[in-house]
Amino acid sequence: MEPMSADQLTAEVVERLEGTTNPRLRVVMQSLVRHLHAFAVEVALTDEEWMQGIQFLTATGQKCDDVRQEFILLSDTLGLSSLVDLINHAGDEPGATEPTILGPFYVPNSPERSFGASMVEFDDGGEQTIVRGIVTDVDGQPIADAVLDVWQNSANGFYAVQQPDVQPATNLRGIYRTQADGSYEFRTVRPQPYSIPDDGPVGQLLKATGRHPFRAAHLHVKVSAPGFIGTTTHVFDAESDYLDSDTVFGVKGSLIRSFTPDLDGQLVCAMDFALRSDG
Amino acid sequence: MEPMSADQLTAEVVERLEGTTNPRLRVVMQSLVRHLHAFAVEVALTDEEWMQGIQFLTATGQKCDDVRQEFILLSDTLGLSSLVDLINHAGDEPGATEPTILGPFYVPNSPERSFGASMVEFDDGGEQTIVRGIVTDVDGQPIADAVLDVWQNSANGFYAVQQPDVQPATNLRGIYRTQADGSYEFRTVRPQPYSIPDDGPVGQLLKATGRHPFRAAHLHVKVSAPGFIGTTTHVFDAESDYLDSDTVFGVKGSLIRSFTPDLDGQLVCAMDFALRSDG
Repeated sequence: MEPMSADQLTAEVVERLEGTTNPRLRVVMQSLVRHLHAFAVEVALTDEEWMQGIQFLTATGQKCDDVRQEFILLSDTLGLSSLVDLINHAGDEPGATEPTILGPFYVPNSPERSFGASMVEFDDGGEQTIVRGIVTDVDGQPIADAVLDVWQNSANGFYAVQQPDVQPATNLRGIYRTQADGSYEFRTVRPQPYSIPDDGPVGQLLKATGRHPFRAAHLHVKVSAPGFIGTTTHVFDAESDYLDSDTVFGVKGSLIRSFTPDLDGQLVCAMDFALRSDG
Repeated sequence: MEPMSADQLTAEVVERLEGTTNPRLRVVMQSLVRHLHAFAVEVALTDEEWMQGIQFLTATGQKCDDVRQEFILLSDTLGLSSLVDLINHAGDEPGATEPTILGPFYVPNSPERSFGASMVEFDDGGEQTIVRGIVTDVDGQPIADAVLDVWQNSANGFYAVQQPDVQPATNLRGIYRTQADGSYEFRTVRPQPYSIPDDGPVGQLLKATGRHPFRAAHLHVKVSAPGFIGTTTHVFDAESDYLDSDTVFGVKGSLIRSFTPDLDGQLVCAMDFALRSDG
């Protein structure tokens, strides 16, 4: 009797999934099986490597808790999160601000802050800066009353949510709105490069593959307005380290901005956002 | 500025892994990234599906404990375990007994039992049977003093290791040796089809994909002998349900045997094993 070939086995597994009643789940699972099997065949995965993979995935799941999502870190550092982001926005209208990943540190319900107000509630020596710009549609028409939900890390490299005993919960988080001319403005400190949590399986994998765990300095913004498709994006500091090697592949050239002193010596970062109409 | 394409992003992640010092790890990780990305692109994975995947993998890791390995179940039910087995034995000498998966219920250090002895230590109404045959090299020459490490489930469908409060720990486990003519023989009960543990994420996935959680009835044997390459395999009952739909894709045609009454009405399963020389 002739032993089964790898191709025959893959075909049998794919066939076994034909009974999936949800047609989308069937497509996703059959594609997953084909690619998973193709990977194992391509590298001729050994029994020991298979077991290492099982142990790695198990440890990754067991590292997750209420405030730590190690599988998202894994997805981020393998470029999968950025890829999913890119796939789902590949057809976006030209002229709209490029989105990038949400990241693990977003907290909803930040305090509403007035035009120009500071979101610094904890002083650890950060460099004072103003961030300002306008929010428009893709044709450049200003959008009044657009909402900017902003969050970033402190000079010590940590987000408030990572340091509940050190930083006030709403430090460096705020919700701002544009004026009638589409302009927004807020005061903050310059964001810092930082290490993603690297004391778990993902940190070990980064080390084993000769990679550092750092992200380029950035602030996060979710921009939304009635009648428009909201976007979740970053503004990167043009002088930051790691712009070419952001460990989660989040940097997009169109999102890099300078932090430049104005005539009074006040540091300013100018960033405009353009939203697509949802009509 | 032109947004990055999916191909460019994949190439960037692969490039980032060039610093992996272990050349084998580099090959494995680069192939993994290419196939993972190709899957996401092929199905145009949505944000919601990505998050469902993250949650599924997290739940799978968190279901694992000292006696439950949900990631191995996932690998088994996606056919990956059988594929790895097949890849690593594709070049085996013709004539050798085909291997199949180890499964999660192997326990080392089973009791040594004499030729013909029973390994039944717990009576729950199983059908008495004799299993016998010879162990040879691939040319059919008998191997004396070969070791057969055997384990199987009871009439109630469970292995002793799954029921520490019900079955004696060594029930239906035993180590047998061949005589000078290569023959072995033991008394047992007929193995039963059974469900893999299906109260976790893998069980949910089987349900969602219209699949049952059953394995065809089988007994497990690890056969070894000095001077030969050992094999880990199954003997399947030719009258079992699920031979065509074993949920872990473990069935190989060459491993199916009849359980047939002899002239005295005693049920007998005849199975020979052939080992490759390690020379």
